[in-house]
Amino acid sequence: MRFAARVHVTLKRGYSDPEGETTARALKGLGYCVLDVRVGKVYDLSLEAGDEEEARRVIEEICLRLLANPTKDDYSFELRGVA
Amino acid sequence: MRFAARVHVTLKRGYSDPEGETTARALKGLGYCVLDVRVGKVYDLSLEAGDEEEARRVIEEICLRLLANPTKDDYSFELRGVA
Repeated sequence: MRFAARVHVTLKRGYSDPEGETTARALKGLGYCVLDVRVGKVYDLSLEAGDEEEARRVIEEICLRLLANPTKDDYSFELRGVA
Repeated sequence: MRFAARVHVTLKRGYSDPEGETTARALKGLGYCVLDVRVGKVYDLSLEAGDEEEARRVIEEICLRLLANPTKDDYSFELRGVA
């Protein structure tokens, strides 16, 4: 079966996010009432797996091994089957 | 009122995504049945706006002016009110 996963990897609270701070400053400079910006990555993966449970297990493992650094990143994902 | 917006900025289909290709290759090398990976950015913004309609208008404008390059990027966002 084919699955599509959208994975979010964001910095944990407490970690400085210079890109987010710069973006917030730029937006305030343009006159927007923005209070805070945090920047992260989104990965759109398509993968083959036997069933949804296996797909979840694989994505979880991929997050921990490659996409996120568990020391400084939070991650989450949504999974859906693809026809 | 305070709002939280999650904005996704991803490369349009057809644009080469070297980071996604490298990630896919690395995952295949680790033995995962990954077919494709595309990488984008996620922005978590908090902002002040009079109502939801105004917040939507502001986020749309922010996407077009600063966060996305309409030539090469797709963007989408979810908005929710914050207590």
